Amino acid sequence: MAPRVAVLASGRGSNLQALIDAARGGAPFEIALVVTDRADAFALERAKQSDLPARLVDRRRFAERRALEREIERVLDDADIAWVALAGFMRVLTAAFIATRPDRIVNIHPSLLPAFRGLHTHRRALETGVRITGCTVHVVRPALDDGPIIAQAAVPVLADDDETTLAARVLEREHQIYPLALGLMTSGAGVVDGEQVRLVKPVAEPPQGFIWPKLA
Amino acid sequence: MAPRVAVLASGRGSNLQALIDAARGGAPFEIALVVTDRADAFALERAKQSDLPARLVDRRRFAERRALEREIERVLDDADIAWVALAGFMRVLTAAFIATRPDRIVNIHPSLLPAFRGLHTHRRALETGVRITGCTVHVVRPALDDGPIIAQAAVPVLADDDETTLAARVLEREHQIYPLALGLMTSGAGVVDGEQVRLVKPVAEPPQGFIWPKLA
Repeated sequence: MAPRVAVLASGRGSNLQALIDAARGGAPFEIALVVTDRADAFALERAKQSDLPARLVDRRRFAERRALEREIERVLDDADIAWVALAGFMRVLTAAFIATRPDRIVNIHPSLLPAFRGLHTHRRALETGVRITGCTVHVVRPALDDGPIIAQAAVPVLADDDETTLAARVLEREHQIYPLALGLMTSGAGVVDGEQVRLVKPVAEPPQGFIWPKLA
Repeated sequence: MAPRVAVLASGRGSNLQALIDAARGGAPFEIALVVTDRADAFALERAKQSDLPARLVDRRRFAERRALEREIERVLDDADIAWVALAGFMRVLTAAFIATRPDRIVNIHPSLLPAFRGLHTHRRALETGVRITGCTVHVVRPALDDGPIIAQAAVPVLADDDETTLAARVLEREHQIYPLALGLMTSGAGVVDGEQVRLVKPVAEPPQGFIWPKLA
């Protein structure tokens, strides 16, 4: 049976959709639950449309971060969730939460980490004038946007880009690399070794954990 | 007449060679002078083999950084040098030196800036576990490995890489991108606008200031 994954999302959930589609297309994981902390998250609608269980753990009901996290932990445990994939979940997780599933909580970030941790990555990439940016799927650590890198994809910055056009181009890659990276981990092909992910089994795509433009 | 470029190198000068070859192959600049601060720099030998004027400004003769820089400035002025290209020049330049040729001193750095400024970039990339690294040509500012980015090339990190194999793969890209980036600037296609380089004329390669693996 495929490992059971919960996707945590606060927003529109386009990466959630990519993971749902991949799971149904044969990726080595099952999206077993969608959790959101916002009542207005479109992720809830996506779960409904895909006939997936969804749980709202409303951030407004919890004064304390740990209280909200404990409720999410309970929801995950009840659903027998092995892996957690963050997809636009707008909360920084505590070490206590992360310790509940060691090395089995993953995140996607819209930059080539370690560049541009944090928010407004595309704006900052444009301000910095980089020619190449991308996205990164990594194992979650308590530090923001830090942790062993599973996979990355490179994306060009074009001369006439603004935040919207660049975000859209990177997002296309996010939808490709997130299912691949999650599958590398849930299949056992990728293992955390120290603070790196090593690929210990031959895999199809991406063979080395990166995606080039040619795979577009 | 093509703009006159001096290359400053402290080491073996493989990027110097790439610039010499490009200039002789029709790139929009002339390598008019090679300057080194080390008597044992192989860059001197390369200059000789290419019949180019070379000057040793021996670092051992100067107790103070500005004294060494002033001697280099004199050498550059004597040779009517418009542009300076750093190629493994192991000195951090002062603001005073940089101000002698505003926006006309460029450098190549073996990472995708802003990631991995400073030394030992490949070791740090491997330790961080990135899947994609690269190289950057940028206009020099007083801060180390900082300044408007002219061009970047992306390079994959392979699962069995060590510092040597990764450095060699990145160096291949350096040799491609440095002549292209320098040519973008000396031809007037790239202009510094604030802290960014904008491409204001259509150019052949790289059309947007980046190189992908497909150009290998």
